[in-house]
Amino acid sequence: MNKIKKIQKKLSELNIDGIIIPMSDPFQNDFIPEYYHRVKFLSGFTGSLGTIIILKNSAALFVDGRYTLQAQKQIDTKQFSIENYDSFSMMSWVLKNTNQEHTILGYDAWDYTVTELNVFQQAAPEVDFLPLNVNPVDEIWVDQPNISKTEIFLHPESYAGQGWKDKVKLVKATLEQKGLDAVLLTSSASICWLLNIRGRDVPYTPLSLCYAIVHCSGHIDLFVYLENVTEEIRRHFGSRVTIHKLSGIDLAEKLPQILTNLRVGYTEQQAPMNVRNIMAPIVTELKNMEDPCALHRECKNKIQLNHIESVHEEDGIALVKFFCWLDENYKKGKITEAEAAEKIDLLRKENKTFQGFSFPTISGTAQNASIVHYRAGKNSLTLKEGDLFLCDSGGQYWGGTTDVTRTVCLGKSPTPKKKELYTRVLKGLIALSSAKFPEGTVGCQLDTLARKALWDLGYDYAHATGHGVGQFSNVHEGTRSISPRATRGDLKVGMVFSNEPGCYISGDFGIRIENLMFVYDTKEVDIFNRKILGFQTITLCPIDKSCIEKSLLSREEINWINSYHELVRKKLSKHLTGKEKAWLQRETSPL
Amino acid sequence: MNKIKKIQKKLSELNIDGIIIPMSDPFQNDFIPEYYHRVKFLSGFTGSLGTIIILKNSAALFVDGRYTLQAQKQIDTKQFSIENYDSFSMMSWVLKNTNQEHTILGYDAWDYTVTELNVFQQAAPEVDFLPLNVNPVDEIWVDQPNISKTEIFLHPESYAGQGWKDKVKLVKATLEQKGLDAVLLTSSASICWLLNIRGRDVPYTPLSLCYAIVHCSGHIDLFVYLENVTEEIRRHFGSRVTIHKLSGIDLAEKLPQILTNLRVGYTEQQAPMNVRNIMAPIVTELKNMEDPCALHRECKNKIQLNHIESVHEEDGIALVKFFCWLDENYKKGKITEAEAAEKIDLLRKENKTFQGFSFPTISGTAQNASIVHYRAGKNSLTLKEGDLFLCDSGGQYWGGTTDVTRTVCLGKSPTPKKKELYTRVLKGLIALSSAKFPEGTVGCQLDTLARKALWDLGYDYAHATGHGVGQFSNVHEGTRSISPRATRGDLKVGMVFSNEPGCYISGDFGIRIENLMFVYDTKEVDIFNRKILGFQTITLCPIDKSCIEKSLLSREEINWINSYHELVRKKLSKHLTGKEKAWLQRETSPL
Repeated sequence: MNKIKKIQKKLSELNIDGIIIPMSDPFQNDFIPEYYHRVKFLSGFTGSLGTIIILKNSAALFVDGRYTLQAQKQIDTKQFSIENYDSFSMMSWVLKNTNQEHTILGYDAWDYTVTELNVFQQAAPEVDFLPLNVNPVDEIWVDQPNISKTEIFLHPESYAGQGWKDKVKLVKATLEQKGLDAVLLTSSASICWLLNIRGRDVPYTPLSLCYAIVHCSGHIDLFVYLENVTEEIRRHFGSRVTIHKLSGIDLAEKLPQILTNLRVGYTEQQAPMNVRNIMAPIVTELKNMEDPCALHRECKNKIQLNHIESVHEEDGIALVKFFCWLDENYKKGKITEAEAAEKIDLLRKENKTFQGFSFPTISGTAQNASIVHYRAGKNSLTLKEGDLFLCDSGGQYWGGTTDVTRTVCLGKSPTPKKKELYTRVLKGLIALSSAKFPEGTVGCQLDTLARKALWDLGYDYAHATGHGVGQFSNVHEGTRSISPRATRGDLKVGMVFSNEPGCYISGDFGIRIENLMFVYDTKEVDIFNRKILGFQTITLCPIDKSCIEKSLLSREEINWINSYHELVRKKLSKHLTGKEKAWLQRETSPL
Repeated sequence: MNKIKKIQKKLSELNIDGIIIPMSDPFQNDFIPEYYHRVKFLSGFTGSLGTIIILKNSAALFVDGRYTLQAQKQIDTKQFSIENYDSFSMMSWVLKNTNQEHTILGYDAWDYTVTELNVFQQAAPEVDFLPLNVNPVDEIWVDQPNISKTEIFLHPESYAGQGWKDKVKLVKATLEQKGLDAVLLTSSASICWLLNIRGRDVPYTPLSLCYAIVHCSGHIDLFVYLENVTEEIRRHFGSRVTIHKLSGIDLAEKLPQILTNLRVGYTEQQAPMNVRNIMAPIVTELKNMEDPCALHRECKNKIQLNHIESVHEEDGIALVKFFCWLDENYKKGKITEAEAAEKIDLLRKENKTFQGFSFPTISGTAQNASIVHYRAGKNSLTLKEGDLFLCDSGGQYWGGTTDVTRTVCLGKSPTPKKKELYTRVLKGLIALSSAKFPEGTVGCQLDTLARKALWDLGYDYAHATGHGVGQFSNVHEGTRSISPRATRGDLKVGMVFSNEPGCYISGDFGIRIENLMFVYDTKEVDIFNRKILGFQTITLCPIDKSCIEKSLLSREEINWINSYHELVRKKLSKHLTGKEKAWLQRETSPL
């Protein structure tokens, strides 16, 4: 009996019409641990976003435009139809395929956030969503991997720039201001930030899986895998933190013991539905609020920024070594995309504070570079003269997280069209990098600066211009971004953002240039006495001059490039010797 | 007994704690008819935005930053305190000054929209808002002006580009799509657009005050002042329109007769609370929806755009004559701001299709130009050599509405600072004017283009970059704008917007340059197969070259100015003779 059939048998036993299975975990991680990869287990699909719905007589995988082709290759289309990924499409598919007045759809209430479920409920008021006590997929998943349980380690104050007790004071202040007794945190990233701890439970993200309750007294109840807790960590916490076992059963038992009759805050966008189901009956007040750590976490202090900058020096060394190696070796005609990815990964690993990759390296040439989330596999292309090669990669380091993209032309003779588009992508990067804006400005106001040069010619990119980046934490962080949809939440001093305009010609070539930068206070004020903010670029890696059509650049843009290259040379040269130094000298000489 | 005391006596009689009195009318007009100017009657304040709250022992006028100084001059600050204009400030002032557990605040439920009242209620859940049957202000206002009642006249199909019955079909389609039996329209602008009629009931706006119900049958119930209805209008409507008397009492009687047991749409942002109070108990369903006329009204068809362009030729003639006259006469040292306003108003009146002004002319020089909504009065300044002079004016014409601002330097020798800022304002105007953007783009994405050159130097303006403009209707129209807050609703083909960046140095000088432009389809598509849209400028008036610092402009910007000036010359020269023609020739010669 195949997996779908087995699940459908479960549906009958449970007396429900279907089940909805997302690609998510109870901690809202970007990269979910293997244990939670139920979509992959059921279908074989390995993309980063996808939901499966299984009904009594049908099943579908819902993916967005990026993954339609990949899904067709990876899954058995006789078992699954491939459908469009959005809440409304999902629900109308359910209604069409159940075709009855009342439909009961089961879900694992640790997988869906309160907000997500509300959206589903609005999209289909006629569907009853039934939380399941046991996830039927886990029941049939014989060789389900264990949850990765790794020792928690300290994120030293010398990196964090602030002691954890001081951070707790900030959360306490929010509780007092909102008149709450406690807040339940369900984001591992926030809790690890708050307590200055890290772990290795999550792919590409140095976090320990956990929940926590912060009380207005400053006391903390921490839910973690007990085997992850070392003596050092217990000493670090002292008596201020009570450690509890993390599991659905334990949370269901302990949350009522701890929170009954309290006024409790939580974040519906992050908290699983089960958390609400457990808390709602027992608390005096249940208040939806922004994660009280989020904004503090996103605004890095000076010490953090110093570490982040220094980590980018390390990262830059690996990048320079890589592109120098590429220049020297691609002509031999034997480097595949996969080998190139392996090389940059190896070089990055050599850095002394390296702790892991921040996401799977994207290494694509020619038409593959036009696939935004491409991963080179067995059939990866060989790098060829005249083609563009795009490499998007990043590391987790003591002190910081990196994320950088460079697109280079192999053999220094791009076509005029590639040059024109490369230069316009670069113009966008420069326009955003050099923007000066008043405090209070939100992402959608800045996003256009990065797109304008492409819009002028009818090009654009179907992704955000920038995402927040954590410090030795999530590579996608926070409540802010730079995108047309980022209409709320102003960019604040100390926030780190990517700046990554691109241009993708499907089946032909792709271009993306990405730097990280942080928001800084220029110390000047504008005519309304508002602080003037700007971005400081932190990524250090040459931008391929052979792809630049100089006649399209203004004097200011040329100056920006020359200054940037001078900085790259100054910061990195001292770490290089011989031919790499010479290569860098050449690549960073003035335009 | 003064007015406040009289109102406070009414409060006791009504057994309420206070009353809130806005500057608004039941039709949500920008420029409210004198009849509704209760704030001015009570306080003497003549600004365009302000609310009075009178409590048993205190009274306050709430105004925004623009009007603080003006309010201090105009009102008796012993009777009124001046407070900050926003819903939260108003309510916290009320709570502070009543200081009791329950406060009852009376309001005229024809004055406040459902949305506005919801905001108040959210800001102060502890306040009971009590709709009053009779407005106490009207009771003590012995010489309250009559409501202006003027004959309704036709807006010919040759101007509208579409017959009213075809427009009704569009509204019917919306009703069908939403499963509604009828919609109640409370916006005079929408109803006059829908029925191709106009009137003169509203200052600066050629509208007739009215409400209307559109049924899914296509039948219309129209509420107007019966004395406004001519035989011609009755013939225009035929049997498809039933005419009712417009008044609060008549609406309270007729709406239930017409709408009982129907599914009815209305727009909470526009509809007075009373409309909801009347309809809620008698309808089967009351659905809040976007005004079904709004989007159709905002997207002008080709015939409308042709008229709007031709009207701008007329407007341009008046402007050229004015600025030529100014150049010739300011040196005599005898022109005041008020006289300048009188002159442009006179010249505009001479245009053959002129029907009125679209707002009170702003004519300010030197420091007065820095007051965004300045109106020259008795103490108006004399125009002096070396000063900047700002004139923001507009007309209502058969076929279109204009709104244009030019800032000129008297005597052609602005200081370097004025030149720099003038040029940066102009750079913003050009950047927005020449933007090419994909369909789906919203205002906040474009707004920054107009501000960037100012931001770069720490300047900005505290108003939107652009507002929608009607056709022989409201000069401020619609659901879209170009501003940092315009995060919803994309700019669509045929919409007319102002483009009016500025820079105001308080107490010193002010700069604003404003053109109207419409969104057009470039007939090209972008890489995602989305239509590429652009703006076509329609205002015709030279931009003062003597204020331009050419070294700050790119080649493209210089080309834009030269092309624009060539267009202005070509379109206007034929209507001019002698010295005005020569003046225009000189003013529009290439940079």
